[in-house]
Amino acid sequence: MKRIAILGSTGSIGRSTLSVVETYPERFEIVALAAGKNLEAAFAQSQRWKPRLISVANEKDAEILSARLKAAGIGVAGLEATYEAVRAGKTVGLANKECLVAAGELITAEARRQGKPLLPIDSEHNAVHQCLRGGTMQEVQSIWLTASGGPFLHKPKAEFFRITVQEALDHPTWKMGNRITIDSATLMNKGFEVIEACRLFNLAPSQVRVMVHPQSTVHSMVEFVDGSRRAQFSVTDMQLPILYALTYPERVASSMHLSVMDLRHLDFIPPDMGKFPCLQLAYEALEAGGGKTVALNAADEIAVACFLEGRIGFEDIPKVIYEVIAATEAGQLESISQVLEVDREARRVAQEKVRQLGRSTLVGQPALREK
Amino acid sequence: MKRIAILGSTGSIGRSTLSVVETYPERFEIVALAAGKNLEAAFAQSQRWKPRLISVANEKDAEILSARLKAAGIGVAGLEATYEAVRAGKTVGLANKECLVAAGELITAEARRQGKPLLPIDSEHNAVHQCLRGGTMQEVQSIWLTASGGPFLHKPKAEFFRITVQEALDHPTWKMGNRITIDSATLMNKGFEVIEACRLFNLAPSQVRVMVHPQSTVHSMVEFVDGSRRAQFSVTDMQLPILYALTYPERVASSMHLSVMDLRHLDFIPPDMGKFPCLQLAYEALEAGGGKTVALNAADEIAVACFLEGRIGFEDIPKVIYEVIAATEAGQLESISQVLEVDREARRVAQEKVRQLGRSTLVGQPALREK
Repeated sequence: MKRIAILGSTGSIGRSTLSVVETYPERFEIVALAAGKNLEAAFAQSQRWKPRLISVANEKDAEILSARLKAAGIGVAGLEATYEAVRAGKTVGLANKECLVAAGELITAEARRQGKPLLPIDSEHNAVHQCLRGGTMQEVQSIWLTASGGPFLHKPKAEFFRITVQEALDHPTWKMGNRITIDSATLMNKGFEVIEACRLFNLAPSQVRVMVHPQSTVHSMVEFVDGSRRAQFSVTDMQLPILYALTYPERVASSMHLSVMDLRHLDFIPPDMGKFPCLQLAYEALEAGGGKTVALNAADEIAVACFLEGRIGFEDIPKVIYEVIAATEAGQLESISQVLEVDREARRVAQEKVRQLGRSTLVGQPALREK
Repeated sequence: MKRIAILGSTGSIGRSTLSVVETYPERFEIVALAAGKNLEAAFAQSQRWKPRLISVANEKDAEILSARLKAAGIGVAGLEATYEAVRAGKTVGLANKECLVAAGELITAEARRQGKPLLPIDSEHNAVHQCLRGGTMQEVQSIWLTASGGPFLHKPKAEFFRITVQEALDHPTWKMGNRITIDSATLMNKGFEVIEACRLFNLAPSQVRVMVHPQSTVHSMVEFVDGSRRAQFSVTDMQLPILYALTYPERVASSMHLSVMDLRHLDFIPPDMGKFPCLQLAYEALEAGGGKTVALNAADEIAVACFLEGRIGFEDIPKVIYEVIAATEAGQLESISQVLEVDREARRVAQEKVRQLGRSTLVGQPALREK
């Protein structure tokens, strides 16, 4: 039986992971759950799964939960928790982008030192991981991450200024949290994935390419030096990469198979960096390295939150990020605490840029808050 | 340096193999060439490559060649030569369909006994081989062989009766020999590949599926039990699977890479067995087993040759094959000589059926002979 700890158990990936564990009760045991601010969900999960440890995001919530459950740990931030899990020699399945975007060099170096695999759960990196099996990294020419293209793939750039929050949240293929859905609409999500891929698979930025593939059936490809490419196809259900990571290196039978109809027509088109400058910004931050990718992630989180609150427009998101990256040093970061410091400063600068933009922009669209 | 013997050196795959060897002179040495009836080409090849052994199809040609070269072996049929190569513990790269269709059980059993891989060079099986790497056969649910669909994919069945030899030879994606081009037009080629795949990868007939994929960019897919599929993509150049087989388990750099345009639109549609009964016949012969698949191959070779000579029509090809399969015993074959005996008898019956059909059919189209 594999013993599983879930950091972020009440989020979208956490809940999918618990669904997978529910389907294969003979294989997995839940030993620890770390939830965020959703106290009711954390309480329900701990009653259902009876983990030895459960944590929530802040001390006050932990006390409330502790009183209700008669036992509870105290939460820590996802980044530190992940780093500590790797340092403790655990096999870590990673769905959290922040970890690799902000502190990827530190985390992957530590995983190599521990000799333990980092198993990516993002569908794209999971696909790359599957395509790399039975090959060596020396044989890889490049990897191609696929992108659905988001809801604005075919919208003319000239109409971007009036994109509403509701339109941006209407993702064509994946059902995800609000931030990642907006990141998909700006293609910043793909930018983060490019950064993650470079770090997970130890590739140069020029070796990580993006292809828009609206059907989201091919989750990524690896191109080998001889010219062959291997691609992974599957349904758009996060339970599949989660199952893969939980059972690796085995594969176990599931009911999540593609139908003939799923493959009828597949399209692959190059991304339009002019329409989606966030992707370009991600490559630039990656090339510059160090603190720039921390700033990219922090600035994006703030900009997206402010967009969701109706404080800035859709086209303001890359503007905020650009300004924050420009204001951040490129220098290599040596510790998680340094990462967190750059992150804090970047968020502060981002908030300031939002205030400046908010004063100069007519936004006028209804705000939407995370449910 | 890998020492290479090519059985069928003047054919399409043989010539492609020599092109690959020419591109990587530091890796490969040609030690033996077996040609067919093209004496001039065999002479030119032996002068260029100076193999220790060269053979041609019959004794008289061997004497002529011997006199010109002052050294030559005597040819043997491809099936026996392949079987003997496997028995001698050689790593065999297989492009010859006949071997696996007619004697696949014997050859694969012998390769397993020798503990040596059989490396498929057919683009589809080569793709499957690539997709299986890093997985186990227990994890495979099915494999999907892709088919271009041939030149008549969109032609209505009602017009099949007047298909000319020239139309049937006009393959949309691959440039190949005449027989295999006709076999692609009838989808019999895909039927042979289904049989080959069952034997190469030790799968049940129901585990080997066919998808029509007109662009021929995806060369095949493997579907795993968890629902993930892995596919291999590449240009339609036989030098790529040849290079893969010659360098296996390594991959070496080549210039044969796909462009963005090659992947723009990919279609996958189920094959129409009503329009292409040869594929159905192949599944039926495979299910029945033993001599039936030998008969399938032999009858098809005769039927296609007679179609190319203008003696029967396009729709007569499956009729001839059906009759010959029906007249052949299903019993398991125990030796190569038994295979050859069933093969001879099937050819005799096929010729008889062609004569009967020839008398009853108005063919009236210009004959075409192998160049």
